[in-house]
Amino acid sequence: MSQLWHEIRHTPLLWLLVLAPLVLVAHSAVPDAHTLLFLLSVLAIIPLATLLSHATEAVAARTGDTVGSLLNATLGNLTELIIALAALRLGQYTLVKASLAGAIVCNTLFMLGASFLLGGLKYHVQDYNRVSARLQTSLLFLATIALIVPSAMADADSVAAAPDFMQDLSFGLAIVLIIAYGLGLFFSLKSHREFFGSAEHASASDEAPWPLSVALATLAAVTIMVALVSEVFVESVQQAAETFGMTPAFVGFIVVALVGAAAEMTSAFSGARKNRLDLSVGIALGSAAQIALFVAPVLVLLSYVIGPTPMDLQFWPGAVIMVLVATMTAIIVTNSGRAAWFVGVLMLMVYLIFAMTLYLLPPKLL
Amino acid sequence: MSQLWHEIRHTPLLWLLVLAPLVLVAHSAVPDAHTLLFLLSVLAIIPLATLLSHATEAVAARTGDTVGSLLNATLGNLTELIIALAALRLGQYTLVKASLAGAIVCNTLFMLGASFLLGGLKYHVQDYNRVSARLQTSLLFLATIALIVPSAMADADSVAAAPDFMQDLSFGLAIVLIIAYGLGLFFSLKSHREFFGSAEHASASDEAPWPLSVALATLAAVTIMVALVSEVFVESVQQAAETFGMTPAFVGFIVVALVGAAAEMTSAFSGARKNRLDLSVGIALGSAAQIALFVAPVLVLLSYVIGPTPMDLQFWPGAVIMVLVATMTAIIVTNSGRAAWFVGVLMLMVYLIFAMTLYLLPPKLL
Amino acid sequence: MSQLWHEIRHTPLLWLLVLAPLVLVAHSAVPDAHTLLFLLSVLAIIPLATLLSHATEAVAARTGDTVGSLLNATLGNLTELIIALAALRLGQYTLVKASLAGAIVCNTLFMLGASFLLGGLKYHVQDYNRVSARLQTSLLFLATIALIVPSAMADADSVAAAPDFMQDLSFGLAIVLIIAYGLGLFFSLKSHREFFGSAEHASASDEAPWPLSVALATLAAVTIMVALVSEVFVESVQQAAETFGMTPAFVGFIVVALVGAAAEMTSAFSGARKNRLDLSVGIALGSAAQIALFVAPVLVLLSYVIGPTPMDLQFWPGAVIMVLVATMTAIIVTNSGRAAWFVGVLMLMVYLIFAMTLYLLPPKLL
Repeated sequence: MSQLWHEIRHTPLLWLLVLAPLVLVAHSAVPDAHTLLFLLSVLAIIPLATLLSHATEAVAARTGDTVGSLLNATLGNLTELIIALAALRLGQYTLVKASLAGAIVCNTLFMLGASFLLGGLKYHVQDYNRVSARLQTSLLFLATIALIVPSAMADADSVAAAPDFMQDLSFGLAIVLIIAYGLGLFFSLKSHREFFGSAEHASASDEAPWPLSVALATLAAVTIMVALVSEVFVESVQQAAETFGMTPAFVGFIVVALVGAAAEMTSAFSGARKNRLDLSVGIALGSAAQIALFVAPVLVLLSYVIGPTPMDLQFWPGAVIMVLVATMTAIIVTNSGRAAWFVGVLMLMVYLIFAMTLYLLPPKLL
Repeated sequence: MSQLWHEIRHTPLLWLLVLAPLVLVAHSAVPDAHTLLFLLSVLAIIPLATLLSHATEAVAARTGDTVGSLLNATLGNLTELIIALAALRLGQYTLVKASLAGAIVCNTLFMLGASFLLGGLKYHVQDYNRVSARLQTSLLFLATIALIVPSAMADADSVAAAPDFMQDLSFGLAIVLIIAYGLGLFFSLKSHREFFGSAEHASASDEAPWPLSVALATLAAVTIMVALVSEVFVESVQQAAETFGMTPAFVGFIVVALVGAAAEMTSAFSGARKNRLDLSVGIALGSAAQIALFVAPVLVLLSYVIGPTPMDLQFWPGAVIMVLVATMTAIIVTNSGRAAWFVGVLMLMVYLIFAMTLYLLPPKLL
Repeated sequence: MSQLWHEIRHTPLLWLLVLAPLVLVAHSAVPDAHTLLFLLSVLAIIPLATLLSHATEAVAARTGDTVGSLLNATLGNLTELIIALAALRLGQYTLVKASLAGAIVCNTLFMLGASFLLGGLKYHVQDYNRVSARLQTSLLFLATIALIVPSAMADADSVAAAPDFMQDLSFGLAIVLIIAYGLGLFFSLKSHREFFGSAEHASASDEAPWPLSVALATLAAVTIMVALVSEVFVESVQQAAETFGMTPAFVGFIVVALVGAAAEMTSAFSGARKNRLDLSVGIALGSAAQIALFVAPVLVLLSYVIGPTPMDLQFWPGAVIMVLVATMTAIIVTNSGRAAWFVGVLMLMVYLIFAMTLYLLPPKLL
């Protein structure tokens, strides 16, 4: 515990942690002050994300980059899962799907692109394990196909207004994706794990590492805090954003995704700055693949239990296009296993094109 | 001949060969017993396919994997060609196109994926000649463009209800594709053949090889038998399948393709299990490329002579999407020239997504 | 000057230079003799292109292939820019866009494909710098996304008949693309230039090189002549082509692009024949990327100043498909950094598919 306390005292940013309980108090006291709650929750998420990132790194230092980034991606996506579950219970499936697609695109393009850029500004060229990146992008490609094929073929046939078709198919696809994800984990962590280790870097041990128990306890506690604050954030963001003149599509796909991924981003960027790009790639692509092949399918299956009606996997065509382009970009970019600042710029610009389009899209969507 | 007889006596599976003439007899006797004929013909195709595969391997042992897999792919596609010719004469162009697209997708995803999986369960990692795979996938890519561009641009222009447009264009495209296929053969077998040899494996000579004459005679005889039995199969499959509750689309694209490719699959899988993955890749992708760049164009040209009206190259959009996705998957997957079981799983899952979609698609199609 | 004169006297092709002033005279004298002007201008462009190519090579000999091909691409695109500016002032945005898309596709598929083929007929295998090719194809990919995403998402939303949406978005996209192009130049010429040098060939110094001043003066003078003659060509081509039975789409995307790129093509082909494939790849892909990320966006921005109304970046869907296919082909083909004649054949066949489709498309387009 003393290391944790020491860290908080010496990192002024972490003093903002005091905002986290404040957000929850404010939310009870003035639930309609959307703009205030929005600003407070964004400010509170930042130090929580920082702390989460430190704790994850402490765990990763003992488990290696592969397991560390899986852990990080999973904890990061816990937030998304919790938010989505709340929306799922209310039957707000459009919101659920927007946040899922937004998270995939944000992780694949923004988080990875910014990692490449930030790392590239410090190191001339950075190498990473391309086998690992290829596994994640292949999984993403499979998920993209699962999103595209049903819509496209139903379209092509111009029949399938039949609602059962989409519903039954989505159920089957969800199970296929979950199995693929499970087998992918088994493949990378067990059966062929020698291909997925990162080029053992000098393990970032510039600080005395936290004991494992402290790190894990911090991880758990901070994740819960992030989830609570995130819920306030999501509730307030739509109305606050309209105050700032943003379209709902822009908020749903861009703003929510960026804030929701704050914790993972802090870890990914910090990994890039420490020349541990495998950690960054693992978090960014691993998290995207996990959302596409695990979180989304699990939500489909859960919708049969807790939702008012079953949720299907038919996404807004614009979202499908974004996921497809993001996946193709990731496949092309990670092919070489080598990064430089301009690669990051290119990925960020693809993301910028999406953001601009959504920002300007006439607000009838969602 | 004694080797052939010896092989049949010692392989219980081959005793099923007796079913082949039985199918033909039953077809004459009870032409309307669709379910019986369907089951009999499937059972008869299996031993024929096994024998065909042994004969091909015997030839390949003397010619090397490149020529061997070309031979195998060509003989395998003879069946498809014979079936398609029967349908062509009757003007059943939708059936012809479905069987062509189904065969391309089946070879590219199922046959290659299952080869990777079966090989990968025995060998930790398998390498194959990626230059060779790249040639085949490039040819497939060209064919896919030939399928997509005319439809897409006619669509984009929303003019070309003009039937002449599609007809004239298809004629031109057919000739382009045949020339490309011919030049591709010249390139890989003659001009740059040193790039296409496989990493000379220990030539699978665990058994005394058949004499070339026996092998070639067996090849010819079995191919004819397969063609005859296949015709019974195709006639009975649609009605039998409906008895089992399958949609026509599922039967046309999946069931017919799987059974039709049984012979090639046996060879491809056997190659993978013997760590001769170049043979598997050559058969799977070579056969797909041959259908797309040779069989389909030849059928278009022949339709001017033997069909009631000329056939064009405009496919059902759902089929175009499947061929496009299959080609992109093959390009991405074969990029590394290295296979493991999970790569096979991924390809099979893409195929499974297609199969599920077709199985559930409301039956109005085809 | 004496070298220039010496070269002209000893290259019979250059005697055609006398046609250049003749074209201009004929254009004043008989402005309606479209077929005559068309033939004269095509004949005049050929020697000008040859001379331009020699001058560029003389400059490239002193600057290296990277800068040389950038210079060549820029000068080649000057012609396109001049032509487009004339059309822009008249508000003929469909023509402008067709010539831009046509130039991108022509450079990417025809110029590169023919370079690979011509080089491959002389050399068994040719290697080139794949990092460099990857940068250009990545830029093209970014531009393609900028063309696709707005249309697709507006479509998907079926809202954006809102004209402001496309207009505002195009303005933003234009700025993004120009910045990306600038950063790409900085990346390849400055920050990471050690990756972009070509494998220093024996610098083609089989002839005494021209002095830099002569080369630069020739470059400038010939570029102006090309621009003048090109304008006559563009004016006459549509009507002359109809005399020859071509559709407007075929003329706009294929004929204009091929003649307009004559100068760059001469240099690219000559580079390929001298085994300096880096020069060819640099000119072909560099020119395509420059049109997509610099010329097109600059025209959008200029349309606010000199056009009757602002021009947007919404292209005919058929053109978008061609640019997308061309970009994907270039990405797949240049992945290996190695060329042989068949690779060139494949690219030319993709181009041929486009040309055939446009040639047969019922003439309602453009």
